This record gives sequence, C-alpha cells and structure tokens, in this order.
Amino acid sequence: MKHIISVLVENKFGVLARVSGLFSARGFNISSLAVGETEDPAISRMTIIVKGDDKILEQVKKQLNKLIDVIIVKDYIEKEHIDRELILFKVNINKQNRDKVIKIVEESPAHALKIRTDSIIVEIVEGQDEIDKLLNALKRFEIKEMVRTGRIAMEL
Amino acid sequence: MKHIISVLVENKFGVLARVSGLFSARGFNISSLAVGETEDPAISRMTIIVKGDDKILEQVKKQLNKLIDVIIVKDYIEKEHIDRELILFKVNINKQNRDKVIKIVEESPAHALKIRTDSIIVEIVEGQDEIDKLLNALKRFEIKEMVRTGRIAMEL
Repeated sequence: MKHIISVLVENKFGVLARVSGLFSARGFNISSLAVGETEDPAISRMTIIVKGDDKILEQVKKQLNKLIDVIIVKDYIEKEHIDRELILFKVNINKQNRDKVIKIVEESPAHALKIRTDSIIVEIVEGQDEIDKLLNALKRFEIKEMVRTGRIAMEL
Repeated sequence: MKHIISVLVENKFGVLARVSGLFSARGFNISSLAVGETEDPAISRMTIIVKGDDKILEQVKKQLNKLIDVIIVKDYIEKEHIDRELILFKVNINKQNRDKVIKIVEESPAHALKIRTDSIIVEIVEGQDEIDKLLNALKRFEIKEMVRTGRIAMEL
C-alpha cells in the first residue's frame, strides 16, 4: 500500500539527506518527495510517498521520530485528507493533432499555460485519479517533458 | 542569488540521499525540493531551490554530474522558463473574519477547496510573486497549516 508520510523537520543542513537516507537504508524507494517551508520558516515539511512492507515502515517511522531534527511524523493514510499534486507537461504538437490535444486539455481539469505552433505546456493540479486520466489521454501524443512536484496532503 | 537546479536521476535506492547530501556537505541548505517521476518511470527529476555562493554551486553541479546515477543537471536561472508551486493553506476563521478571508481568496488567483465554520482550506498554484502576495494578505489571520510542494520549472 502507498503511504503518504509527512515529516516536520528543523530547517537545517543535512536533515533532508538523513531522512531520505533512512528510507533507502531500509530498502524503501521514495516515489515522490516534496519539501517546502511551513508557516514557521525554521521548520520544513517533507511529504514522502512510499510503498512497501507496512511493518518495516512502522520501524522507519519510529526511527524517524528518534532523529533529533525531526519534530512530528504523520501518516495521512490513517486520516481523512486531501491529496494534491502539480504537474507540468510539454506535449509536442503539429498541424494535424493540435486541435485534438487542445480539446483533451480543455475537457480535463488541466489548462494550457503556453501554446506554440510545435508544443503546448499544460498544467494540472489534482488528485491522482484525475492526473492518471489526463496522462493516459495524452500518452498517444509525444510528451516531450513532464515535471511533477510530488504529492502533498492536508488533513481535513 | 536563488538557483533552480533540475537534476535527472535514475530512480534507484539512495540517489536522493546522495544528491541532497552533496549540497549539505558544501554548506548549501536546500530551501525547497520536489521529486517526482518523469515521462520515463525509470527516471526521476529533482527540482532543487538553493541560495548561496555561485562559485561553490558551480563545483556542486560538477560533482553532481560525476555521480553515476545522475543523468543531466540544468540550472533554470540561465534559461527562459516558467516557475510554479502548489501550496495548501488551512486558515482558522470565525464569524467575524470569515467573509474577509473568503474575499481575499476570491480576489487572488487562489481558490477554496473546503470551507468549514472554523477553517478554510485554500489552494494556490502560481509563481513566487503571486504566492508571496497571498501569504502577506493572509498573515493577519491565523494560518494553522501550510503545505508547499516546492517550486518546479519548465523551459519555454
């Protein structure tokens, strides 16, 4: 099962490497990670998406809690939450498929940030289901570049 | 000067810790970091915001390029690019200030994801100037929680 782990940490050198090192030492690959400042600039939040054995993950969470620069560890899977991600796509277009691509974007929750004759930059901010739907629809065109923020979550 | 560094890496255990360790070893604090899959699931992109001495940063970029799992290092500061971030805020509200908070949100590029009697969850996706403007406007109310993805960028 995928877990959404939020780790509040002191905004200090090396904390990021220590926290992500803890996951990799236990064989967890982090599928996405978003790190940003919180309402208190001395504190950063890491939102980590990991998939793996739940028992080992419990151990990792305990170890995280023992790190001196870690303030709180939360697993959103256990809580009612919203879950959002921002993605930018650059899709190559040509005269033949341009209108088709624009129509797919317009009929989705995404929108175009920039339309050129040979490419379109699309932005989507959604939960994973809507993002996967758009990705699937755009797969038959040439996605030149995709940049994802990684998922973030907030308790309701 | 703030730099926006994009690092394409093999999606493997430990790469994240190695890359972020390289910055902290040189005394750079990463102010935001976004890691997600790319159009190729075997490859992840790390978008890193750092501020610090430009000469030392050049050395860090060279060292990154030498890491076996690093594919490309780009600095968006040198390129024409768009720069976006997703932020979720939870603002505490009450009968007295509720309409004021909603008005600020409606007049900004943000929107409300959830409005309750005692709190409102706001989502904004923008460049840093618009985000700072909204943050400043909401500062006089009680921001209970702020979750940021970290900035991502795309070449135009």
